[in-house]
Amino acid sequence: MAASSSLTVSQALVGRTIAHHGSTTHPDRLALPGFSLSSLSGRVLKSSSSQASRVAGSRKRVSSRPSVRAAAVETLDKTETSLVEKSINTIRFLAIDAVEKANSGHPGLPMGCAPMGHILYDEVMRYNPKNPYWFNRDRFVLSAGHGCMLQYALLHLAGYDSVLEEDLKSFRQWGSRSPGHPENFETPGIEVTTGPLGQGIGNAVGLALAEKHLAARYNKPDSEIVDHYTYCILGDGCQMEGISNEVCSLAGHWGLGKLIAFYDDNHISIDGDTEIAFTETVETRFEGLGWHVIWVKNGNTGYDEIRAAIKEAKAVKDKPTLIKVTTTIGFGSPNKANSYSVHGSALGAKEVDATRKNLGWPFEPFHVPEDVKKHWGRHVPEGTVLEAEWNAKFAEYEKKYKEEAAELKSLISGEFPAGWEKALPTYTPESPADATRNLSQQCLNALAKVLPGLIGGSADLASSNMTLLKMFGDFQKDTPEERNVRFGVREHGMGAICNGIALHSPGLLPYCATFFVFTDYMRAAIRISALCEAGVIYVMTHDSIGLGEDGPTHQPIEHLASFRAMPNILMLRPADGTETAGAYKVAVLNRKRPSILALSRQKLPQLPGTSIEGVAKGGYIVSDNSSGNKPDAILIGTGSELEIAAKAADELRKEGKAIRVVSFVSWELFDDQSDAYKESVLPEAVSARVSIEAGSTFGWAKIVGSKGKAIGIDRFGASAPAGTIYKEFGLTAEAVIAAVKALC
Amino acid sequence: MAASSSLTVSQALVGRTIAHHGSTTHPDRLALPGFSLSSLSGRVLKSSSSQASRVAGSRKRVSSRPSVRAAAVETLDKTETSLVEKSINTIRFLAIDAVEKANSGHPGLPMGCAPMGHILYDEVMRYNPKNPYWFNRDRFVLSAGHGCMLQYALLHLAGYDSVLEEDLKSFRQWGSRSPGHPENFETPGIEVTTGPLGQGIGNAVGLALAEKHLAARYNKPDSEIVDHYTYCILGDGCQMEGISNEVCSLAGHWGLGKLIAFYDDNHISIDGDTEIAFTETVETRFEGLGWHVIWVKNGNTGYDEIRAAIKEAKAVKDKPTLIKVTTTIGFGSPNKANSYSVHGSALGAKEVDATRKNLGWPFEPFHVPEDVKKHWGRHVPEGTVLEAEWNAKFAEYEKKYKEEAAELKSLISGEFPAGWEKALPTYTPESPADATRNLSQQCLNALAKVLPGLIGGSADLASSNMTLLKMFGDFQKDTPEERNVRFGVREHGMGAICNGIALHSPGLLPYCATFFVFTDYMRAAIRISALCEAGVIYVMTHDSIGLGEDGPTHQPIEHLASFRAMPNILMLRPADGTETAGAYKVAVLNRKRPSILALSRQKLPQLPGTSIEGVAKGGYIVSDNSSGNKPDAILIGTGSELEIAAKAADELRKEGKAIRVVSFVSWELFDDQSDAYKESVLPEAVSARVSIEAGSTFGWAKIVGSKGKAIGIDRFGASAPAGTIYKEFGLTAEAVIAAVKALC
Repeated sequence: MAASSSLTVSQALVGRTIAHHGSTTHPDRLALPGFSLSSLSGRVLKSSSSQASRVAGSRKRVSSRPSVRAAAVETLDKTETSLVEKSINTIRFLAIDAVEKANSGHPGLPMGCAPMGHILYDEVMRYNPKNPYWFNRDRFVLSAGHGCMLQYALLHLAGYDSVLEEDLKSFRQWGSRSPGHPENFETPGIEVTTGPLGQGIGNAVGLALAEKHLAARYNKPDSEIVDHYTYCILGDGCQMEGISNEVCSLAGHWGLGKLIAFYDDNHISIDGDTEIAFTETVETRFEGLGWHVIWVKNGNTGYDEIRAAIKEAKAVKDKPTLIKVTTTIGFGSPNKANSYSVHGSALGAKEVDATRKNLGWPFEPFHVPEDVKKHWGRHVPEGTVLEAEWNAKFAEYEKKYKEEAAELKSLISGEFPAGWEKALPTYTPESPADATRNLSQQCLNALAKVLPGLIGGSADLASSNMTLLKMFGDFQKDTPEERNVRFGVREHGMGAICNGIALHSPGLLPYCATFFVFTDYMRAAIRISALCEAGVIYVMTHDSIGLGEDGPTHQPIEHLASFRAMPNILMLRPADGTETAGAYKVAVLNRKRPSILALSRQKLPQLPGTSIEGVAKGGYIVSDNSSGNKPDAILIGTGSELEIAAKAADELRKEGKAIRVVSFVSWELFDDQSDAYKESVLPEAVSARVSIEAGSTFGWAKIVGSKGKAIGIDRFGASAPAGTIYKEFGLTAEAVIAAVKALC
Repeated sequence: MAASSSLTVSQALVGRTIAHHGSTTHPDRLALPGFSLSSLSGRVLKSSSSQASRVAGSRKRVSSRPSVRAAAVETLDKTETSLVEKSINTIRFLAIDAVEKANSGHPGLPMGCAPMGHILYDEVMRYNPKNPYWFNRDRFVLSAGHGCMLQYALLHLAGYDSVLEEDLKSFRQWGSRSPGHPENFETPGIEVTTGPLGQGIGNAVGLALAEKHLAARYNKPDSEIVDHYTYCILGDGCQMEGISNEVCSLAGHWGLGKLIAFYDDNHISIDGDTEIAFTETVETRFEGLGWHVIWVKNGNTGYDEIRAAIKEAKAVKDKPTLIKVTTTIGFGSPNKANSYSVHGSALGAKEVDATRKNLGWPFEPFHVPEDVKKHWGRHVPEGTVLEAEWNAKFAEYEKKYKEEAAELKSLISGEFPAGWEKALPTYTPESPADATRNLSQQCLNALAKVLPGLIGGSADLASSNMTLLKMFGDFQKDTPEERNVRFGVREHGMGAICNGIALHSPGLLPYCATFFVFTDYMRAAIRISALCEAGVIYVMTHDSIGLGEDGPTHQPIEHLASFRAMPNILMLRPADGTETAGAYKVAVLNRKRPSILALSRQKLPQLPGTSIEGVAKGGYIVSDNSSGNKPDAILIGTGSELEIAAKAADELRKEGKAIRVVSFVSWELFDDQSDAYKESVLPEAVSARVSIEAGSTFGWAKIVGSKGKAIGIDRFGASAPAGTIYKEFGLTAEAVIAAVKALC
């Protein structure tokens, strides 16, 4: 009885009433013992400090710093608090025990953040443990991903099948579902992949953007069919990373009111007290970024402060909220709390014992007390109810708004309309020469008409990257239904936000753009795309020295090679309009493998022989005057250099040679082909192979073989008109011809 | 006369008196016509607004935004102002004309920032045009590097030999000294290489750190031998980039009082009005970061506001200052000012004419009016005097402080003490097994004793990267003489700051550290190191799946390949203590080529056959039982996998095979060797080659040949104990042996 009362009090406190979320009252919910909203009205809540006296390692400067705005405090009675504390300590000890068993991991954060974790998953968030992919669930992101045992403990208590007791016991072991950092592709219930600091808050901004966008497009005055929150916990490390400032600046700009971020202010990072490197006033910075800021001074035992802060955050609808929660890292450990030593190592048997004593925890490792288990047990039935209610609501919606419902369904399921690829533009050799960045824009605009989930933009280079969707306006605070996202000069944040959008719903298809060389700014986010299977489309223009005068700081050299070496990326470098369309087809189809399209600034002719089908195979024959799969030489080009290869072939053929020209638009796709196909394109017997690409030759030896020749650029670029640089760097048909003549 | 008075007024206004900088009065200075400090005292200065009425495209919200602190205004009389305006317009038109001639470039920023540029280079900064490398010069960084014509115009007017009229006329052309973005290696007088946004302010923080550090180490109560300022102009783009928040947070933390940054608040970025993506309150953010903030509301014609702001900034000694200068991009262009169109394109002949009319500029392209020329002419003699004064001061210093002077001299010249490399630790096969990250720390600590310029630290992973110099404390606001730099979790900013340190003085030897995988966060800065020839040492630990349980987000795979493809980088992966020492020797010697050391988390044995000399050659034979340069097979390993190759060789030799083991510690160094040497290590006739490396196999085909076998990892890693992952991924001696047997 007490436990359930506690629950409902909390629900009331944080404004999580059924009416608030717009769903109808459901009989199953009322069947929960002791559930009664009305019984809470006017109730006097008492102070709770039973645990405070036992706290080791209290923070020094908590009271001396000025508060932005202290959270208003209401409190529960002692019995209710007692179970909450027990639940919180369960979370702490599951983390302690798992790290101890693995002898590896990060117990400090889970011990400090257990109160906010408990309140979020037990009292605030709406989710269905039996369907981690239920569309309208609240999203949670642990940006401080090293503290993943917090999340595993919470998913375990909440009843997710992905984190059973055996998973907790196999934390950080080969083949387990509880890896060392949260990985969405391993553990259903984990929304995104975090660990590299600052990425998670970027993902969270993307998730919140997606919610705001879909709500604006699909909600109706009589039905808020899209309505959920995004919660995030970030630590000092996330705060220091530049990416977090980028995405939080955007979140403030966009007014993402349903994004609520908890800043775990524990004042400890790996090198010790954050005083040694991090003395900025985070609250002031966030106010500058346009956030609502609340400070919970006692995040260790001030449960009601946390609850009140969430309530306040929800009431602020036009701004994201940062709740700075001052906690003690490793709370409860008498000798290691509030120190670096509890951050990233097991406590050790002795300190585990001391912590058990200190927190009054008599249980065996991995034990979940019966009353805690019972208390959390309601989330499975409740979640089923929540989803069923939403499904019923959707059925109503579908009746009234057939088209919108169908479109939203496709976004939820990820099923694209049949024949969408027919919308892609087609080109013939007679089509005018054009830069592939312009042809890319034609593709994007064609796709936007048939793919309702296509949304994206550029890092302040829309007019250079050619990424504007002409039929749509800008996604902005007051026009969130639009689809052109203006990321500003924030490449890294852009990538992380797109990962969040992609992982929000399978049918959302984010694209983003900058100059190819500036993938260096966002490489960490692109790698996460590849790892977490987010099919983001990276539109990367100005893909070589062909950009000309801007010079070596702007000219990519090693970038193609660097992405070809990255797992699970599709690196595509189309040569003309047909190949650009082909690249987009590949990119759209690969929802679990991000695509990078390297596109030219300069005009390129539409080449005979290129094909959409060819692009899908990665490497294919564009032209050939040989027979019997025995050309004298094979010329291999990508992107803007395919034209040069074709020109060289023309000349060589005039001289009687049998020349094959191969477009090598995507190495990864070619790798995926059968050996027979590979042999049909690059027969082993033909060793006279010359490649040409305006980039590093690194890696090309595999394609041209030890007897072949790779023409490329193994130095930095230069500032001059593009044609001059090509000539000076020897990227010419003449050079290809000379290389072929030297080989055969 | 009037011109010179104007100069001295300005000098007085900004507090740039000779006494202030601690130098003695010099007769040459007094010989300048009309120079008299005393004549200025009590002078009444009048308002200057002669140009304001002609301004096109005025800013809208200038007056409606609340000021942080408006700069106090004192004004010059009209005659003086007139020449200043003429000089400012000269700068504008040199930029306009150069961009017009090149038909490429960015006129908007130079037109808007010409006033602050003029005041800095003509009135405030201390430099010697005839020796751009004079140690005690003030440093200037154009973080908004696209506006480089501003700087070229200023260097030209100031009398630098690197920017003659012919250079302005060959702007952005092949082989010119005025490339499309500022490049220190092309143009003496340019301090750092900028263009990629946000890097420059990071460099500036590094330059200011270096000054503060050297001043603390070498200044004496009777001699401020190190005493200069760092100025920086950054734009909206720089402000949006996360890296700028990282470095500015550190600058505030360190209290870099001699760093003065101008924020060119022109409200226009490439995609249009910054309102579409950038509505944060920058001033508030910087206050949160611990900066002093001033707002100059009229950066177009409010010269005295700018001067007063600089004066105020100099008076604040314990904080860096951000001077937000509200300007009009493309100031003076009647139809294009305050619009995107003037940002990155030539104005066009018609608009150039209109601008000439609008600003009352009757001159031919590239013309510098005689009075302007004469006015600026004093900087050459003055600069000579400044340097001579400093040299005299140094001579005095040297007499009193012999040791300090010698050390400082070595930092200025970049000459290391003879035999420094003897300090490197030595190892034998009997030395205990250890992780190369620990061996790296032994090297760093040994080098710190003999290299006075070694300074650096980690991005909050000092205890994991093993980078602490035990004999030194932390470089902090109040202990700037120390050499352990605490960067916090700010990898990108760390790299840019180290570039600034490296380029401050040839003898400064910055190193920085994080996990190897997080080079992704700082790749843009590392690329700039390579391009701008900053010999930063990147200490990158946890260099493979060998880090174990932290899992795929933390395990580098493609990183070795990605840096091997980057120009001018030395990517080193030592296998044991001897090779680690060898890698440090290479890194220290290569002052114009940054080194990345990939180091293991796990213990590795000291291998027989490794050598410091071998490392210098990049690839070398570690063991061999063949004769006549004809082994049956060659096993090639790097870093932690060299041990596996050696073990496999032992087994194969037992079976009677002639096996050579090659350590391939640095591909770039091996590439630099003679063909004869290469043949002696990897004879062409031996095609049975097997490589093993715990990373992507991308690129290895070049080394092992089309018949060889590269054992590596072409997928993401996994969370598990390291030994398990190695086994599961097939990185074992057994796999090497099997591969060899399949080949021979």
